Amino acid sequence: MSKTVIQYVISRLKEHGVSDYFGVPGDFAYPILDGILDDKDAQWRGSCNELNGGYSADGYARIKGLGAVVSTYIAGELSLVNALACAYGEHVPIISMVGMPSRQQQATGEFWHHMIDRHDYDMFVKMQKTVTIASAILTPENCVAEFERVLAAVLYHRRPGYLGFPGDVAHLPIVNTTVPNNIPFANPQSDPATLEQSVSHIVEVMSKAQKACILPGVVVKRCGLSDLATQLVDATGLPFATAFQDKSTIDETNPNYMGMFMGKFANPEVNEFFSSSDCILGLGPIRHYFNTGFFTAEYDVSKTINVQMHEVRVGNAVYKNVEMKDVLEALIKKLPKWKDVKAPSKITPFGEPTGSGSDPIDAGNPFYARLAKFLKPGDILVGDPGSPALAATVMNLPEGAELQSQGVAGSIGFGTPAALGAAVAAPDRRVVMVGGEGAHQLTAQEIGQFYKFGLKPVFIVINNDGYLVERYTCWDPEQEFNDLPKWEYHKLPEVFGCKDWFTTKVTTTGELDAALEEVNKNDRAAYIEVVTDRYSMPPMSETMFTLTRQKFGQTFTWEEWYSKFKKGKNIAIRK
Amino acid sequence: MSKTVIQYVISRLKEHGVSDYFGVPGDFAYPILDGILDDKDAQWRGSCNELNGGYSADGYARIKGLGAVVSTYIAGELSLVNALACAYGEHVPIISMVGMPSRQQQATGEFWHHMIDRHDYDMFVKMQKTVTIASAILTPENCVAEFERVLAAVLYHRRPGYLGFPGDVAHLPIVNTTVPNNIPFANPQSDPATLEQSVSHIVEVMSKAQKACILPGVVVKRCGLSDLATQLVDATGLPFATAFQDKSTIDETNPNYMGMFMGKFANPEVNEFFSSSDCILGLGPIRHYFNTGFFTAEYDVSKTINVQMHEVRVGNAVYKNVEMKDVLEALIKKLPKWKDVKAPSKITPFGEPTGSGSDPIDAGNPFYARLAKFLKPGDILVGDPGSPALAATVMNLPEGAELQSQGVAGSIGFGTPAALGAAVAAPDRRVVMVGGEGAHQLTAQEIGQFYKFGLKPVFIVINNDGYLVERYTCWDPEQEFNDLPKWEYHKLPEVFGCKDWFTTKVTTTGELDAALEEVNKNDRAAYIEVVTDRYSMPPMSETMFTLTRQKFGQTFTWEEWYSKFKKGKNIAIRK
Repeated sequence: MSKTVIQYVISRLKEHGVSDYFGVPGDFAYPILDGILDDKDAQWRGSCNELNGGYSADGYARIKGLGAVVSTYIAGELSLVNALACAYGEHVPIISMVGMPSRQQQATGEFWHHMIDRHDYDMFVKMQKTVTIASAILTPENCVAEFERVLAAVLYHRRPGYLGFPGDVAHLPIVNTTVPNNIPFANPQSDPATLEQSVSHIVEVMSKAQKACILPGVVVKRCGLSDLATQLVDATGLPFATAFQDKSTIDETNPNYMGMFMGKFANPEVNEFFSSSDCILGLGPIRHYFNTGFFTAEYDVSKTINVQMHEVRVGNAVYKNVEMKDVLEALIKKLPKWKDVKAPSKITPFGEPTGSGSDPIDAGNPFYARLAKFLKPGDILVGDPGSPALAATVMNLPEGAELQSQGVAGSIGFGTPAALGAAVAAPDRRVVMVGGEGAHQLTAQEIGQFYKFGLKPVFIVINNDGYLVERYTCWDPEQEFNDLPKWEYHKLPEVFGCKDWFTTKVTTTGELDAALEEVNKNDRAAYIEVVTDRYSMPPMSETMFTLTRQKFGQTFTWEEWYSKFKKGKNIAIRK
Repeated sequence: MSKTVIQYVISRLKEHGVSDYFGVPGDFAYPILDGILDDKDAQWRGSCNELNGGYSADGYARIKGLGAVVSTYIAGELSLVNALACAYGEHVPIISMVGMPSRQQQATGEFWHHMIDRHDYDMFVKMQKTVTIASAILTPENCVAEFERVLAAVLYHRRPGYLGFPGDVAHLPIVNTTVPNNIPFANPQSDPATLEQSVSHIVEVMSKAQKACILPGVVVKRCGLSDLATQLVDATGLPFATAFQDKSTIDETNPNYMGMFMGKFANPEVNEFFSSSDCILGLGPIRHYFNTGFFTAEYDVSKTINVQMHEVRVGNAVYKNVEMKDVLEALIKKLPKWKDVKAPSKITPFGEPTGSGSDPIDAGNPFYARLAKFLKPGDILVGDPGSPALAATVMNLPEGAELQSQGVAGSIGFGTPAALGAAVAAPDRRVVMVGGEGAHQLTAQEIGQFYKFGLKPVFIVINNDGYLVERYTCWDPEQEFNDLPKWEYHKLPEVFGCKDWFTTKVTTTGELDAALEEVNKNDRAAYIEVVTDRYSMPPMSETMFTLTRQKFGQTFTWEEWYSKFKKGKNIAIRK
C-alpha cells in the first residue's frame, strides 16, 4: 500500500536530515503529530510556544540542513510568523507544517474554533506567502507533486516553506506516487556555457589583481559548501574576512583569516585592507546594514565579484543559472595562487583577559577575552541578538566552532530556542548560548526543554539591568522603556525543572573565572548570570553610542556622558 | 504650533480611554516611545515580548474600550500577529503602532536591519490586512484623515487596526488639522425608517411568543451597552442565558439569568429551554463551535432574531444601518413585559464545595465550587483557554464580576498577559487569572510585570502534568506530545522578581482552602499552584472525552479508560 500523506512527508524530510520536529500540539494538528510519533526514526520535540518552536527549527536547520515546526490552524501558526520571517532573512530552510480543518469541515463552511471569522480556509496560507518562499495545502492526489515543489523551492532558495494538512488528509494513502519531471528549482544544474563564461570572466578579472581577497557569505554554509570555499582559500592563498552575518562560514583557525570585516566598528586593519583591495571575491555575502558595519564599510563595489547560490556577478555583468558549487570547483582549478598579498595578520580583538579577583566584570576585554578562551573546538556558540552577540561576533573562534545568530533579522529572543534546536541537532557538540537579559526575557521558558531532552547546554546571560543596545542607540539612555523587571536569572533553570545544573550568579571577575573553570572541568549543563555595570560595553558598542549622539546632534562622548551618569548626575541630554 | 503626529495620535487615543501602552521597544519605534514618555498622562508598560504585549493590550481594551501596543518594524510587529488575529475574532479594538524606517531611509532603498530582503516598505502592513480591519502609514499631511479613518473603522467593527510611523514622521507637526467629513464608519447613525421598521418587525414577532428569551452576545459589552441590555431584560422580564464567548455580558446576579447556554456540555435545563423556545432574541451572539457547545446546541434558527452592532436580522429579513444602541432603546420602550415565561431557575452547576482536609484536589466540583466562592464582587476573572477556562465559564459570578477569555480564538497563553492588561486598566479591581499549566508555559514570563507596576493579581494555575484538553480530545490521551517540562510553577513569581507575594503549591483540598482564605483575608498578590491528578476534570470535559471517543470509533467511556489508566494498565487504545 502507498504511504500516507504524512508518512510520505516525514520520509522525504528524513532523507534531507530531519529527524526531529518542534512545535506545539493542537487538535487540528493531531494527525501530523500522530504521524511523527508513529515513525520510529522521528522525534517529537515539543516547544513551550510556537515562536520558540520556529526558532528551534531554525537553529536545527542550520546544523542539519533543514528543519521543521508543527503548529495548529491560525491560533498556533500565526505565533511563529516572525520565526519564518527571520529564517527568510537568514536563508535558513525550514518547513512550517500546519494542521488545518478537515476537508469535510471546510466543505460545511462551519465556524470552527481558532477561526476568527467565516473565511476562505486558505487565507492564512496566502497571508504567509510574505514570509515563505513556497506553500501548499496537501491532498492525497497532489501530495507528491506539491510537497516536492515546496521542498525544491525551500532548498533552492534556502528559505522557509509552508505545508497545510487538512485533518482528514494526513492519514490517507497518497494517490499519485510519481514525482513530476517539471518541478521548478529541483536539482538545479549550471548552464555549461554560462558556467564557462562566468568562470573565465572571474579568472580574467582576478588574475590582474594585486590585492585580491575573499569575502565568503553565510549562504556558503547554508548550502553545505564550506569545505569547497576553504579549498578555494587554500588553493588561491588569498586572505579572507567575513561580515557580521557570515561569521564562521570558513573555519577561523584557517591561516588566511584576517578577522571580522565590520567597517568602522572593529578591526580597522581589515577595513583598511578591504577599502584598498583591487578585487573582492564575494561568495554570496549580502550588502546590508549589519554586514557593512552599519553602512560604515568602504569598498569599491565595482571591484567586487559575487558568486551567489545560483548566479554570478562580475562588475555589472550578471550570469544566471550557474550553481555556486560548480563555480567554486572551477575556480579552485583555474585561479592562480597568490603569494604576496600583504594582508593583516589575524587580529585578536580582545587579547589576553585582564582583570581578576574582586574586579567588577567589565563587558569589554575582561568578559569577551574570557569567553573566547572558554570556547572549545567544535562548540556551537549561539548569540541572542544584542550587544553580547555583536561583541561575540568579533571574537576569534577555535577550530570547528561556529557562531549562530541573526545577522540581518536581529530579532531578540532568538538565542534560547535556537540553542535548543542546535543542541537537538548536534547532541555530541557543546552548545553555548550567550545573550543579554533583555533578549532572554522574550523566550527564556524554553530552558526547561533542554533538561527534558537530556541536553547539557551552557547559558551565559549578561545582566546589565536593561536593553543595552537601546540605551546606546536612543536619544537618552535612561529612557524608562529600556528598563526591565528584575529577574533572578540564575534561578530560571531550577524553576523550569532542570535538575543538577550548575547555576550561579557572578559579579566579580574572579567569580566569573571560577564559574567558567567549573563548567569546563566537569562538562556540566550550566547557567551563568553575569552581572555587569549598567553601561559596561565592548569598544564597538561605544562606537555605536558615539555615532548615535552625532545623529541626535549631541556633542558629548560616551565617556563624558558615562562619567556624569556614574556620579549620579543623570543629566537630561535631549537637545 | 500644531501637535506632532505622535502627539495627535496619543491625544486622540486618550479621548478614547487609552492611557497605557504595551509593547517592546526597538530603534525604529523610538519616536513613538519618546512621544509616550513625553506625555504626562500616558504610561509606558513594557512587555517581555510582543505577543504578550498584544495580549495585554487586548485585556486592557476589554475594560477601557480601546487598547494600544507598540512594536518595531518586522522583527517586533510580526510576533504579535496572533494577538491581532485573536482580537479580531473576539471583537476587541486595539491599535498596533509600529515604528518603521524613516521616509529618507525608505527613499534610499537601503537594506536595513530587521528587513528580511529588499522589499516594498509597506508589504508587512499589507500582510497584516488579514488580521486588521483598517491600516495606515502616517505622514504629517495625512495624519488626521488617516488616523481618524483607522480609528473609526476599529471602533465601528471593534476589531484591531494598524498604524505605521516612519521614523522621521512621529515628531513632525501635522499639516492638515481638519477632520474630513466623509470618514467611513465615523459616528454611525441609524437610518430612521429602517430603525422603525426593524423594531416594529421585532415587536410584531416577539409579541406572539409565549416562551421568548434573550441571548446577549459579547459585542454588547464591547460596545459599552451592557446597561441598556440589562434594562431590556428588566423591562421585558424575559429570561436570558449566555453562550461561551458571551459570558458575563449581563451581570450574572440578575434574577432573570438562567445560567450558561452550552448545548449538551452543561446545564441541560437551559439547553432544553432554548430548544423549545419560540423566539430567541439575540443581541449579537455569533454561532460558532464554542458558542454552540461544540455544535451540540439545538435551537430553531428560523425563530431567532439577532440585533447586531449595526444591523438587525429577523428570520430571513436583514435590516442594514441600524445601530444596536438605538434598537435596544426602542425595544425597551416598545416590547411588552412577559410575566409567565417558565424558565429554569438559575443553575448553580458546582453547588457547595465538597471534600476537605487531605483529600486530593478534584478538578470537578471541589475545585470550581471553591473558585466560585472565592471570587468577590467586581473581580475580573481571566481564563487562559483550556479546561480551567471552560469549567470556569460554567460557574456563576458574583455581582459586578466578569470573565475575560477567548471564546472563539482559543489561543492558549492569552491568560497571563491579558490579566496584566486588565490589572493596568482597572487598578482598583482584583484580577484573578485561572488557567492550566500547559497554556501558562507559553507566556508565563509576563508575571514579573505585575510587580514592576505595583499590581496585586491572584494567579491560580492548575498543574495536571500536561495538556489536559489535548488528552481528552486526541486518540490516545497518553500521546507524548501532551507532556510538558515539569516546572516549579509556584516559584515563578520569585524568579521573575515579585517580592512579598503569597506563593504556594497545594496538593490537598485542605491546603487549597487555606491558601484561598489567606489570599482573601489579607488581600495579597498571590500565586497558587494547584496540583491535581493527571486526569481530574470537570463533568463537561468528560463529555468532550466521550464525544471524542465516538469520533475515533472507541467504545469505552471515560471512567473505563480512566480506571485502567489509574491501575497502571496504560492500554494502547488506537483502533
